[in-house]
Amino acid sequence: MTNRPLILISNDDGVNAQGIQVLTALMQRLGDVIVVAPDGPRSASSCSISPLDTIFITLLKEEEGLKVYRCTGTPTDCVKLALDGLLTRRPDLVVSGINHGDNASVSIHYSGTVGAALEACMKQVPAIAFSLKTKEQQCDFRPYEEVILQTAQYVLENGLPHDVLLNVNFPEVEALKGAKVCRIGRGVWMKEMVKADEGEGSFRLSGYFQNLEPEAEDTDYWALDHGFAAITPVQLDMTAYSLFDELKCLQK
Amino acid sequence: MTNRPLILISNDDGVNAQGIQVLTALMQRLGDVIVVAPDGPRSASSCSISPLDTIFITLLKEEEGLKVYRCTGTPTDCVKLALDGLLTRRPDLVVSGINHGDNASVSIHYSGTVGAALEACMKQVPAIAFSLKTKEQQCDFRPYEEVILQTAQYVLENGLPHDVLLNVNFPEVEALKGAKVCRIGRGVWMKEMVKADEGEGSFRLSGYFQNLEPEAEDTDYWALDHGFAAITPVQLDMTAYSLFDELKCLQK
Repeated sequence: MTNRPLILISNDDGVNAQGIQVLTALMQRLGDVIVVAPDGPRSASSCSISPLDTIFITLLKEEEGLKVYRCTGTPTDCVKLALDGLLTRRPDLVVSGINHGDNASVSIHYSGTVGAALEACMKQVPAIAFSLKTKEQQCDFRPYEEVILQTAQYVLENGLPHDVLLNVNFPEVEALKGAKVCRIGRGVWMKEMVKADEGEGSFRLSGYFQNLEPEAEDTDYWALDHGFAAITPVQLDMTAYSLFDELKCLQK
Repeated sequence: MTNRPLILISNDDGVNAQGIQVLTALMQRLGDVIVVAPDGPRSASSCSISPLDTIFITLLKEEEGLKVYRCTGTPTDCVKLALDGLLTRRPDLVVSGINHGDNASVSIHYSGTVGAALEACMKQVPAIAFSLKTKEQQCDFRPYEEVILQTAQYVLENGLPHDVLLNVNFPEVEALKGAKVCRIGRGVWMKEMVKADEGEGSFRLSGYFQNLEPEAEDTDYWALDHGFAAITPVQLDMTAYSLFDELKCLQK
């Protein structure tokens, strides 16, 4: 390894997904890269970890400036393992994705892509999650390369506050209209459980996302719906400070 | 079912855990109760869901004012299934726990107990997560009954803002000193990955929690360390608004 920046990459679609391969090639332009990613799809794994399991890692590839590992754990396990057991120096940046599917609005809470970035953030390593609003496993990621490189370069040069990560979502377009700094929009998943045909009491997850504030131009979902990349700063601290006064009656 | 409040209960330790049984008995004093909980331990499952699996539920118990289901999914799956497939009316309150193990500071991000409450919050149902800082599977929950009942009663009577839930943590004590409304404290898990004895590249999760601001008296961890119940309002919106100006250079 050299004195170039060290960039750790993970995702939740698994080490073989197209998105992480594209992201790896892009990050190699900016630094030395270590990939530690799940051995298969871990979509919607949030910040889950595997306290009851043995976690196995295997080195898949090693060449100048690049190592690729697959891991039997969740995206968050991957980042924990990299930071605590695998890397000999602290990475300068952790990037996650590019996820096949957006992680905007409330979906941020379910996202393993964001979960990996949150884990890095908890360990005070600057982190960015990248996701593309698509249902395809094979996509043209070229329209997003410039924003990905620009955002990663910005964070490498400027860092991020210790409790903040960036969540970047892209619409599936031939050319981006631009990039907007956004808040997390309010939305809700509807009709999520459908009966499965595997007997009484069997269900499968399904449903559709409903934007609860489609007119609000400052949200991540508005940006996606209008052809812009959505760059959302996300903080670890979920405390609802505005409720402190109201809740004082519960103190004693 | 009657016109008493309807209370949905889930957890991440599984339907047979002592904590959920205690919580069920307490909530029966306040309303009709439906339990939908995992069929076994799902600790640290965060907000993860199971998009690739068929989810099965089984009715275990039905009596006046109480139904108990076990579910093969995660805590979040349980709440989705209850709200979208099982309940014939909207619950007045969702409670989760009582978790065996605290969910204060950064542990809130890994917690399936909090994950279940977050899911209810996303569906605009008032929700409370309850956790006890213990490593025991059998505990004396009597010291916490009054705060649990008082908090649940408060939320039944007053509701909560649509994007806020309550995260309540208890220290393991014979008698609480009181209850404090707190913010989420800053902390970090250390030395989390230890080599397992199952061959090269095998690891297990371990480690210890380090409070990064032990002197700050307004945090959840301070309350726990000093014998108080910690009542923390938690919001869905994780946007770091304070970073908007700084990030404007990324807009285009």
